[in-house]
Amino acid sequence: MPDISIITIGDELLIGQVIDTNSAWMAQELNKEGFNVIRRVAIADEKQSILTALSEEEKHAAIILITGGLGPTSDDITKPTLCQYFNGRMKLNEEALENVKYLFEKVFKKPVTPINLKQAEVPDCCRVLQNKRGTAPGMLFEKNNAVFISLPGVPYEMQGLMLAEVIPFLKEKFTAAQIIHKTLLTVGIGESALAEKIKDFESALPESIKLAYLPSYGMVRLRLTTKAEFHEKIRQDMDFAFEELKKLTAEYLVTSNDLQMQEVVAEILTLQNKTLATAESCTGGYIAHLLTSIPGSSKFFNGSVVSYTNQAKEKLLQVQSSTIQQFGAVSENTVKEMLPGALKQLDSNYAIAVSGIMGPDGGTDEKPVGTVWVAVGNSQKIITQKFHFRFNRLQNIHLTALNALNLLRKFLLENN
Amino acid sequence: MPDISIITIGDELLIGQVIDTNSAWMAQELNKEGFNVIRRVAIADEKQSILTALSEEEKHAAIILITGGLGPTSDDITKPTLCQYFNGRMKLNEEALENVKYLFEKVFKKPVTPINLKQAEVPDCCRVLQNKRGTAPGMLFEKNNAVFISLPGVPYEMQGLMLAEVIPFLKEKFTAAQIIHKTLLTVGIGESALAEKIKDFESALPESIKLAYLPSYGMVRLRLTTKAEFHEKIRQDMDFAFEELKKLTAEYLVTSNDLQMQEVVAEILTLQNKTLATAESCTGGYIAHLLTSIPGSSKFFNGSVVSYTNQAKEKLLQVQSSTIQQFGAVSENTVKEMLPGALKQLDSNYAIAVSGIMGPDGGTDEKPVGTVWVAVGNSQKIITQKFHFRFNRLQNIHLTALNALNLLRKFLLENN
Repeated sequence: MPDISIITIGDELLIGQVIDTNSAWMAQELNKEGFNVIRRVAIADEKQSILTALSEEEKHAAIILITGGLGPTSDDITKPTLCQYFNGRMKLNEEALENVKYLFEKVFKKPVTPINLKQAEVPDCCRVLQNKRGTAPGMLFEKNNAVFISLPGVPYEMQGLMLAEVIPFLKEKFTAAQIIHKTLLTVGIGESALAEKIKDFESALPESIKLAYLPSYGMVRLRLTTKAEFHEKIRQDMDFAFEELKKLTAEYLVTSNDLQMQEVVAEILTLQNKTLATAESCTGGYIAHLLTSIPGSSKFFNGSVVSYTNQAKEKLLQVQSSTIQQFGAVSENTVKEMLPGALKQLDSNYAIAVSGIMGPDGGTDEKPVGTVWVAVGNSQKIITQKFHFRFNRLQNIHLTALNALNLLRKFLLENN
Repeated sequence: MPDISIITIGDELLIGQVIDTNSAWMAQELNKEGFNVIRRVAIADEKQSILTALSEEEKHAAIILITGGLGPTSDDITKPTLCQYFNGRMKLNEEALENVKYLFEKVFKKPVTPINLKQAEVPDCCRVLQNKRGTAPGMLFEKNNAVFISLPGVPYEMQGLMLAEVIPFLKEKFTAAQIIHKTLLTVGIGESALAEKIKDFESALPESIKLAYLPSYGMVRLRLTTKAEFHEKIRQDMDFAFEELKKLTAEYLVTSNDLQMQEVVAEILTLQNKTLATAESCTGGYIAHLLTSIPGSSKFFNGSVVSYTNQAKEKLLQVQSSTIQQFGAVSENTVKEMLPGALKQLDSNYAIAVSGIMGPDGGTDEKPVGTVWVAVGNSQKIITQKFHFRFNRLQNIHLTALNALNLLRKFLLENN
């Protein structure tokens, strides 16, 4: 079973101007098909760095996927460097040329530039993979027993080529291993406390099953993996172990599927055929954004009032001016009034209301940065919770959203 | 001037379950101080992979920064592997032990577990870097002329150690090179058309200055870099070249600082002492989220109505029911009515209103997925624009937000 190494090329990755989401996406898709990514290497748009990486990764893996540096501009040097590495010569590819012309005429509706026509030139020693989403063709090189595939760095183009060309090719050429992952999500318990809780389980796991802890703020994902070829015994062992793990973590378990918190909430609402609204002060629309990122969210999500000012809280959510004056905008009383306002204004079955201080400024001794009040409920019942987060602005926003959604999730399950 | 390689350790990075934001952040901070990251390598929580990466990266760089795999659980094997690589022995570190006890007693307010106490054990051949934000200590090893620094993978902890310990250490030990970056942001022109436009400028650039194109959906950043040691001539060349570049791209120029679009809008609003509200249908609160991620956003942002349903558009934004019936929710007429609704309800000087079809479902022949109407304006004047995006749901949401903010930016500059 061949291992895969991913080389991503681009100065922007090395100065941190761009976050590399490509290789995570690629790894996910490859993993689903049973391919194993063992290394990811990011290097500069620099000839010698590319040549070195190619020869090094060839020693580590039999499949080397390369992204980036295929643009039409002069800082994109991946193609000539690949041409040199494989001792080829640059040559115009007719099919690629047709594609460039087609895209400019029919899709971009702009005149094609000489610089773009040049993108149809490829090394004569490669097989061209047609890029239907952009002008830079994919290229496939074979050398000894290794396969090198070069893809553009623009995510949408890379994704199109991966799904239409690369994965089908790899599946045909190699027999992918049977990899089974099972992941569950816990909230409300730290990594070490969780480890303490399941240490007997962990030490009793069969050698073929690996346990991983994937902590992120406020959550820990637990993942069981087995890499063995498919057979019934291993599948049974996995199922058994995963059921055990679910029981051991039941108190903190959010989902035993590899879902995000907002997807779990969406699932419950859809199942119950109920709708949700949010009244967001400190999260500034982030909870609504998480929910509306889910395809089909209009089935369960009615909308949000992002009441950043006190005036908006009063006018749009009917919070009493006296409540804000007496208790402050960040208070249990305020979120308890924001909630029915959201239910009513957005004609929803359930609502979430949040108000807090995300920082870096605005904290006081009594209500330091990170103080958050959350209310969740329906027209019959409201529950509230106070939180203290200790992070920076963006992380506090994320944590507030996560915990508000989790509070609603519990409410939905308990008050159905 | 020593080069830096960053090794990130964790299976979750190789199966794409987690996107590596750590190394981008590290690269950014290091770059500011003049340090040059030349490679980033992600590998599995696996002893042999770690040992191989350590010895390989030692050949590439004089400074090797390592993150991840320092948690308290058994899948975290970075520490024992480093101990083996540097021929050390594990030993309890008193100061690290005090820190673990302190964090559990005073911050987490939970009883400390044996598993956490073990985190205070470190190889006897390292210097401990105290982690004030978590229980896993940082570790610094020196070998021949190379420096290896191991940091936890939790972003908040890694960031604390980088700023308090790692960067000051590196600055003291090495003389950092003078790196000057100058970046500008363009919107509305593709990478190749831009390249065509500035090709004479590019070929006339002095050899010491490098130009990079950093395209992302709808935007292209242009970055000039010079790596030479500080002297007056180079600084002047850079300033001159950057002014030239600004002139050449003036038509598309959003900012000549390395800012995000929402930060540029925030700057203008703050300068004009004006406030903004958003009425968001298809972006579901994402524009509000972008704006409220900026510290101090309450100075210029009043709030948002996320009117996901037609009912919400009518009730909260006073859109006429007949308008939606006649023209549809995704129409120029609808966004033109949403806008004054937002201005009024949120007592704001300016507003943005958006309505569109983000996909994957909901498209029709007449209004395919990616159709978006945007309105921006104030109580005197409203301008609208129709867009067609061709990407997936999340990318369409991002592009809508970007273009809506850009339309507002132009409106603010032209109608002040």
